[in-house]
Amino acid sequence: MNEIKIIIMGFGAVGKGVAKSISIKKDKIQKEYGVNLKLVAVADSSSSAISEKGLDEEVLIKTKETNGKLASYPEFGTNTNGEAVLDEVNYDILVEVTPTNIDDGEPAKSLTLKAFEDGKDVVTSNKGHLALFFKEMNKQAEANNAKFKFEASVGGAMPIINFAEETLPSSNIDSIIGILNGTTNYILSRMTTEGSSYKNTLEESQQLGIAETDPTQDVEGIDAACKTVILANSLLGIDATYSDVEVEGISKISSEAIELAKKEGYLIKLIAEVSKDALRVSPRLVKKNSPYAVEGTLNMATIKTDLADEVTVVGKGAGSIETASAMLTDIINIIKEKY
Amino acid sequence: MNEIKIIIMGFGAVGKGVAKSISIKKDKIQKEYGVNLKLVAVADSSSSAISEKGLDEEVLIKTKETNGKLASYPEFGTNTNGEAVLDEVNYDILVEVTPTNIDDGEPAKSLTLKAFEDGKDVVTSNKGHLALFFKEMNKQAEANNAKFKFEASVGGAMPIINFAEETLPSSNIDSIIGILNGTTNYILSRMTTEGSSYKNTLEESQQLGIAETDPTQDVEGIDAACKTVILANSLLGIDATYSDVEVEGISKISSEAIELAKKEGYLIKLIAEVSKDALRVSPRLVKKNSPYAVEGTLNMATIKTDLADEVTVVGKGAGSIETASAMLTDIINIIKEKY
Repeated sequence: MNEIKIIIMGFGAVGKGVAKSISIKKDKIQKEYGVNLKLVAVADSSSSAISEKGLDEEVLIKTKETNGKLASYPEFGTNTNGEAVLDEVNYDILVEVTPTNIDDGEPAKSLTLKAFEDGKDVVTSNKGHLALFFKEMNKQAEANNAKFKFEASVGGAMPIINFAEETLPSSNIDSIIGILNGTTNYILSRMTTEGSSYKNTLEESQQLGIAETDPTQDVEGIDAACKTVILANSLLGIDATYSDVEVEGISKISSEAIELAKKEGYLIKLIAEVSKDALRVSPRLVKKNSPYAVEGTLNMATIKTDLADEVTVVGKGAGSIETASAMLTDIINIIKEKY
Repeated sequence: MNEIKIIIMGFGAVGKGVAKSISIKKDKIQKEYGVNLKLVAVADSSSSAISEKGLDEEVLIKTKETNGKLASYPEFGTNTNGEAVLDEVNYDILVEVTPTNIDDGEPAKSLTLKAFEDGKDVVTSNKGHLALFFKEMNKQAEANNAKFKFEASVGGAMPIINFAEETLPSSNIDSIIGILNGTTNYILSRMTTEGSSYKNTLEESQQLGIAETDPTQDVEGIDAACKTVILANSLLGIDATYSDVEVEGISKISSEAIELAKKEGYLIKLIAEVSKDALRVSPRLVKKNSPYAVEGTLNMATIKTDLADEVTVVGKGAGSIETASAMLTDIINIIKEKY
């Protein structure tokens, strides 16, 4: 029986979700694919837990939730430097879920490149290094014959990359137009149903934990722009980086504008457009009862193709276990390809 | 270079779409997968064209459109019996697109079983034999080590089966709820926007070629029920057949009922439900601006899973080239698995 040793870097909501979903699904994966998934190291920004013999996923999650860090785990490591953890234990797949950094892509970039140099496969939900250095990252993966999967970086649990690659291989993709940020979709949906102002709705979303304390990345379209770049590169073969995206956020949308659109049968949505002609994130009118009319924190994407015409996928753009499910699918795809 | 010899049985809209899409995509497929697709026989109910050396897709389509049959094709065959055509020429994949027959599944059933006995792979858009004999058909395929793919039988160009299998392997599927018939969705959408009666809207749909002269299979939910059975068997592992589905069509829906629902923020849709608890096709209320609110001839399906929560796919449920694109994806998947 093949054993696949996994390291999780970053142990916030998504990292814990990955541990949880491995715990739930490892028996199923063993049965269906003939491999044992074994968690050999987990690290967050201040602590780590390392064991060649394998860590208990549930104990890890409980330790982190109780203590805020991993340090009281029975076999905790003292080495909190990410790259050093990668040297300390033998592994096969790095699950890289550190926070997105759109300035220089770190620490995701260095961790990932190191893993590739060591011939390891990487699964990520991170956007920064991909939005800034897509080509470079993928070239390094190829050069080292390593797999690099990033389904969760775009749609969370909405399977957009695998969807396009696995279900539409007969068609050419002309464009992808979608709602790639759940927080802004929630704010705009609430403004539409409640008639409330942007400011009040943002505050309410922050209280609910849907918007972050500093909501800039979401409301100014930065998060959606990162995803736009990743789709442009991965599915349309466009050699683009973050600065190539025209970005306008939702902070200037008034409740009056939404009301006006509504009267004419339209909704205002923060739309990402990926095509050879345009890489753009901006508020746009969409028709009610169209696939673009999804509410709440949902994400969606319509792929326009030459043969299949338009196909749309809708799913949860965030959520711990939901996002982790996309990463587990990436892990399964690596298993199918390599083991 | 591998050569894959293809027979198309049935040369109506979808059959011609398959020929057309092979013609458009064969260079791309040769380049990407290293195989040559070669059409060696095409048959409709009254004529056939057979050539070991390969048929010209565009000439075939033109011949059929000009003469209503294939008989003036330069190397036309005289053998119009489907099963005999399968004996007359060596082939690898049968593309089976004869009309759906929900009484006994013929001629699809016999043609497909014969292909399996000869160790050939089959790609189909047909629903009858699958809705009646799913288990038997698949058992025969397995016994002969033959591939059996039927993506186009459920959603046309909406890739529901590959979607579930390829993009959600990490999750268990609890249920599938969707709109699986485009004609009825068109009629209900028009009744909602226009406030028109069922009778008038059906007539208008018939004039537009969206509903058939005998609309029974669509409006009474039979078509959607067949698809329900196929999804139950293929994605939920439920051993069901056509008679296990509770079916109610849309012919009794009044414009008043639609108006009433509308006032409360709902739409009436013909919903197919596939779960361990229920196999059912019936008119149901869905919320506006939900993924179920798609208009026109679109199909959609929401897959409820344990980890990824709900994911939805939307696409064209019909259309010659669109449906053919799903069959070409099936052909490509056979290539990936076997060649």
